[in-house]
Amino acid sequence: MSRIVTLTTDFGSSSVYVAEIKGRLLHAPGGCTLVDIAHDLPAHDIRAAAWLVSRACFAFPPGTLHLVVIDPGVGTARRMVWVKIDGHEFLAPDNGVLSLAIAARPPEAVRTLPEPADASATFHGRDVVAVAAGRLLAGEPPELLGREHGPLARFDEPLPAEGVDGLRGEVRFIDSFGNLITNLPADCWPRIEAAGGVFLSERPIQRVVRTYGDAPPGTAVVLVGSQGVVEIAVVEGSAARLLGGEIGSPVRIAAGGRA
Amino acid sequence: MSRIVTLTTDFGSSSVYVAEIKGRLLHAPGGCTLVDIAHDLPAHDIRAAAWLVSRACFAFPPGTLHLVVIDPGVGTARRMVWVKIDGHEFLAPDNGVLSLAIAARPPEAVRTLPEPADASATFHGRDVVAVAAGRLLAGEPPELLGREHGPLARFDEPLPAEGVDGLRGEVRFIDSFGNLITNLPADCWPRIEAAGGVFLSERPIQRVVRTYGDAPPGTAVVLVGSQGVVEIAVVEGSAARLLGGEIGSPVRIAAGGRA
Amino acid sequence: MSRIVTLTTDFGSSSVYVAEIKGRLLHAPGGCTLVDIAHDLPAHDIRAAAWLVSRACFAFPPGTLHLVVIDPGVGTARRMVWVKIDGHEFLAPDNGVLSLAIAARPPEAVRTLPEPADASATFHGRDVVAVAAGRLLAGEPPELLGREHGPLARFDEPLPAEGVDGLRGEVRFIDSFGNLITNLPADCWPRIEAAGGVFLSERPIQRVVRTYGDAPPGTAVVLVGSQGVVEIAVVEGSAARLLGGEIGSPVRIAAGGRA
Repeated sequence: MSRIVTLTTDFGSSSVYVAEIKGRLLHAPGGCTLVDIAHDLPAHDIRAAAWLVSRACFAFPPGTLHLVVIDPGVGTARRMVWVKIDGHEFLAPDNGVLSLAIAARPPEAVRTLPEPADASATFHGRDVVAVAAGRLLAGEPPELLGREHGPLARFDEPLPAEGVDGLRGEVRFIDSFGNLITNLPADCWPRIEAAGGVFLSERPIQRVVRTYGDAPPGTAVVLVGSQGVVEIAVVEGSAARLLGGEIGSPVRIAAGGRA
Repeated sequence: MSRIVTLTTDFGSSSVYVAEIKGRLLHAPGGCTLVDIAHDLPAHDIRAAAWLVSRACFAFPPGTLHLVVIDPGVGTARRMVWVKIDGHEFLAPDNGVLSLAIAARPPEAVRTLPEPADASATFHGRDVVAVAAGRLLAGEPPELLGREHGPLARFDEPLPAEGVDGLRGEVRFIDSFGNLITNLPADCWPRIEAAGGVFLSERPIQRVVRTYGDAPPGTAVVLVGSQGVVEIAVVEGSAARLLGGEIGSPVRIAAGGRA
Repeated sequence: MSRIVTLTTDFGSSSVYVAEIKGRLLHAPGGCTLVDIAHDLPAHDIRAAAWLVSRACFAFPPGTLHLVVIDPGVGTARRMVWVKIDGHEFLAPDNGVLSLAIAARPPEAVRTLPEPADASATFHGRDVVAVAAGRLLAGEPPELLGREHGPLARFDEPLPAEGVDGLRGEVRFIDSFGNLITNLPADCWPRIEAAGGVFLSERPIQRVVRTYGDAPPGTAVVLVGSQGVVEIAVVEGSAARLLGGEIGSPVRIAAGGRA
């Protein structure tokens, strides 16, 4: 099998932009194995993309090349970079979109990508990233792509914090079912069971379950989901819609026993 | 070419869940040829998925491995299964999602998939199905995956029924154009021509055509569509929206001549 | 790598129709490398598809086979054709969807595709196009597909026109960000800079920038985009929604200096 190349963008799945990148990648001698991770991410939302990238990319085999193009600052001072993390290679803007990927795994190497003289000012996914990917796919060593790059841009990831009224976290991602994925790690679980649930924007979610099917359809539940963190869900429904949860909505585990 | 593996889910096309499954499949030595059939199916809708699976999967070459993950009961008593049907292999929950696939083609073999000790309670698509797929892609014989499984869960598929006022069927699927695909087979066609159309929720659809372009844009028409069954459509428009059709809406061919 | 085959349709990305085509293509001995360009194009919109095809397909390597199925006239007098353009091969309805692709690059050869006796009246993407693709993938020379075809159907592409009040163009495409892509070529740029902007439906857009990030979020800007034409955008927002732009909306560069 040829080299695996994944694509994560906010371009829309039927966009000319994704096609232009794929077309250029397939010019590589020997081709490549293209995998779409996401193209329908919220436009310009670096934080949502950072969460997805940190979860999705490392599921692929080491040696995979990941193209991440969520780039509201295209053509400004931010540079495009090549980054090696835990045996995976990334091509992405240096705008924080790799913040979460490098939080758990420090980057092994970072290089600044050159901007070809004929690069457009508005589409570096095609004119900088896909060009660099083509060089890598042709066998060029990453060291030749560009000079060493300084520390990558990072945004502060919200962390759970202990307060007088309990442990406070927040909704960090919403999946397509409308499940609210929090930043509360699985090891909070005994506290949630002791407290008899959590509060979402101070609304109690009292049904504590192991999996969605443990409560009737329509029930608001709290559980540890497949991402290893606490989730708030509505069985066979959308917690985002039915409970009004959004990214950033506060989630609290009450202090001292039952909520 | 490496082995073909199709994916049919309700996870959303930009979800971390699809990426996690694809990443694991691509760990197989020799890789695989991934094909997305659908990820934007209505959430938790086993019947809609069953219709799509029965139509889409058998278009692929025999030997294809089909992963079908519409699994509202994940982590409950329902088991994940490996099923061989007409030379194709399926990995799916035993929740009825294969009902229509096995209606026309009895399964040749069914095995229960083991649940690894470290499987999550909420994502068996990754922790049970993709793990089993990896074993199959590595060349392990299906007989070693798990013990023989009893009869598969099936739901009752609505069948057309003869009544005093004609033949009664219903809308079984709605495609992305809004065409209403019924459960009335193509051999009803002479009756529809004799009756001069059909009734959708008792509203007459009187224009009987061979193809969409046989009537002006905006016209409600009845025809035999590409799935070999009777369809109700609006030319260059959406019958679902303009005629108010839904899955389950009754469709009647009048008895005894013109409607 | 096996032969590259791209797919551009209005079938919806989770449709049974796309799966039926992919399944048939993968029956080819040696398989093929499938690439989705677009499945969520506006239904029946030949002009939108023509724009996308002319921009996206030629990014792939010569020798690529492009399947383009936007076909509101399926089953009527229009025929399906094989067309060779600039080393690329296309299979598409002769309904104008290749108008823009052939505007810049005259077709080298055109053949009429035969309609197999068992073809449905409503799905020639599967029954005519995918069948022809299968023959090409099996190594059959295109000359054997069908007889020579006359001139292809073309629609008139709107061109910028000089008027007493300036140069008048229009919005030609809207991308998923809501950027309004016009038919004004990049060489209009000095006039736009001299005029201090453009008028969108007679509303002035006065901020002239090199790239999106050159103005604060929410600002309406005009720039030369990655497609080599003038674009109207709202920084980190949707110009289509916020400015009310649509395909066909007039865009004017004022005559004689500042607007």
